[in-house]
Amino acid sequence: MHRIRAVFAVWFALASASAQAEVLPSWHDGASKEALFAFVAAVESAGIPPAERIAVFDNDGTLWAEQPVYVQALFIFDRIKELAPQHPEWETKEPFASVLRGDLHGAMAGGEKALLELAMATHAGMTTEAFDRIVTEWITTARHPQTGRLYTEMVYQPMLEVLDYLRSHGFKTFIVSGGGIEFMRPWALRVYGIPPEQVIGSSIKTKYENRDGTPVLVRLPELNFIDDKEGKPVGIHQHIGRRPLIAFGNSDGDFQMLEYTTAGEGPRLGVLIHHDDAEREWAYDRESHIGKLARGLDEAADRGWIVVSMQNDWSTIFPGKP
Amino acid sequence: MHRIRAVFAVWFALASASAQAEVLPSWHDGASKEALFAFVAAVESAGIPPAERIAVFDNDGTLWAEQPVYVQALFIFDRIKELAPQHPEWETKEPFASVLRGDLHGAMAGGEKALLELAMATHAGMTTEAFDRIVTEWITTARHPQTGRLYTEMVYQPMLEVLDYLRSHGFKTFIVSGGGIEFMRPWALRVYGIPPEQVIGSSIKTKYENRDGTPVLVRLPELNFIDDKEGKPVGIHQHIGRRPLIAFGNSDGDFQMLEYTTAGEGPRLGVLIHHDDAEREWAYDRESHIGKLARGLDEAADRGWIVVSMQNDWSTIFPGKP
Repeated sequence: MHRIRAVFAVWFALASASAQAEVLPSWHDGASKEALFAFVAAVESAGIPPAERIAVFDNDGTLWAEQPVYVQALFIFDRIKELAPQHPEWETKEPFASVLRGDLHGAMAGGEKALLELAMATHAGMTTEAFDRIVTEWITTARHPQTGRLYTEMVYQPMLEVLDYLRSHGFKTFIVSGGGIEFMRPWALRVYGIPPEQVIGSSIKTKYENRDGTPVLVRLPELNFIDDKEGKPVGIHQHIGRRPLIAFGNSDGDFQMLEYTTAGEGPRLGVLIHHDDAEREWAYDRESHIGKLARGLDEAADRGWIVVSMQNDWSTIFPGKP
Repeated sequence: MHRIRAVFAVWFALASASAQAEVLPSWHDGASKEALFAFVAAVESAGIPPAERIAVFDNDGTLWAEQPVYVQALFIFDRIKELAPQHPEWETKEPFASVLRGDLHGAMAGGEKALLELAMATHAGMTTEAFDRIVTEWITTARHPQTGRLYTEMVYQPMLEVLDYLRSHGFKTFIVSGGGIEFMRPWALRVYGIPPEQVIGSSIKTKYENRDGTPVLVRLPELNFIDDKEGKPVGIHQHIGRRPLIAFGNSDGDFQMLEYTTAGEGPRLGVLIHHDDAEREWAYDRESHIGKLARGLDEAADRGWIVVSMQNDWSTIFPGKP
């Protein structure tokens, strides 16, 4: 009987160790991984009901790469080229002409206004279902200009593990991104395990109408909501209606989301992903035109937020690529 | 051995019958109940994955009573009286003066504009968390002027059973109401089992700001979205991002939601709750100022929607009251 009990004890210990080893395998042991474990343990020991376990994630630069330019911008440029034959006037009209010449620097010279014009020309006019198909087709074939990988293969393996880890502890995971809500929804379930109703992002207005007897929603060239900076807590409240327990971001565009999250009572955690790995990914923060991170770095320690070093904390960056 | 098997067979048959009897117990056998069973069976035999099993429910008149006037209007009137001491000018200013005199007919004389003015005076200016507390306190104490019941006891027992029945078959249940999203969220989980992130409704804008060092969302006296009529499919798309499989409504304000839902491919169902029970609830449809139902009644049969008779299909209307 003692022998049987001893065998069980060893078996149990091995099973625990193996189960433990499977949690966040792409995270090196260290302060960041410990902070994630400690946070989840605190939520469980505080007895916070699963319904209140809300985790929010920025997308660009937090769940997938955002360099050398946002994936959605590359989608827009591809769409402009695709649609150009139907728009001969674009050959001489900026910012379209620059895009068609492949001069992205020139296209961006018009700043936000130019980008918005490009976005509206490519994101509006069709039904929501047609846009879903356009995005789905593009995302399953387009490849990153530098790595040659599909964009959906440029997601961060350690973050996929965090999504799984939190969900296995009863958390509901949401994307809260400045990117277009309808640009993410078609593939977020397949890639991140996040269903469309848990994707929050920027949006344009839609209008319900009958087209040839079929009720559809048509996408209008009119901004509805910008889910960035102060907009992120607003978007969270509008869609979720609760203050999250944990928030992940990588830029100062996520500052207010982390601030709002961690101002709540009980266990809360703010996490900033710091892009400091020029060799395996990209290194950028204070001076970057994309994903600028300055205030977050300055204030993280005082606020109790953790700053994850991609170089030191992550053994793997992209799936299937050590 | 045969005897044991026979005992098991009888036990199993009894258990099945009893399990069967527990489904929708407040629904009389008949075409409506059969249509609900047939719809769920079709969804299951079509192998539609649980993630796509979306069910949407109007609230006023579909999940709870809306007579003699919307519950939220009664909340507004109570709030006006509560806030009056801080607003001496209301004594002579319409529509406030009429409310304070108890003349609701006079208050409504100004139409939508007057109601909007009353709504903004009572729904804006505070933080989202303060508003949540105000609603929670009111809803746990205020009582219906005619029945003396708490409003949360004036929900429809047969609809609570439908919510449970659909959830037990993998459906995610959402409220899609013309009512205020923040007026429903504080109690929808407790009363309907529907968490805040699955409540869609009309809303005012909010603004993120720091109040005395605390980051909060402040409610602004500015409309954000009207979740009614053509707005319902827009709200569904914005929040859920999928076309529902089944939609429940009771008025022509739900027409487009049912139309949008049932235009999808595969098994879909539109359900209209018809208020035809003057004795146990209220009887109203084509001529009602609240919950007007005319086009829905005219077109339901052609569209394959079912019209539920509260009088004939429901054995019980309110919980705990046969």
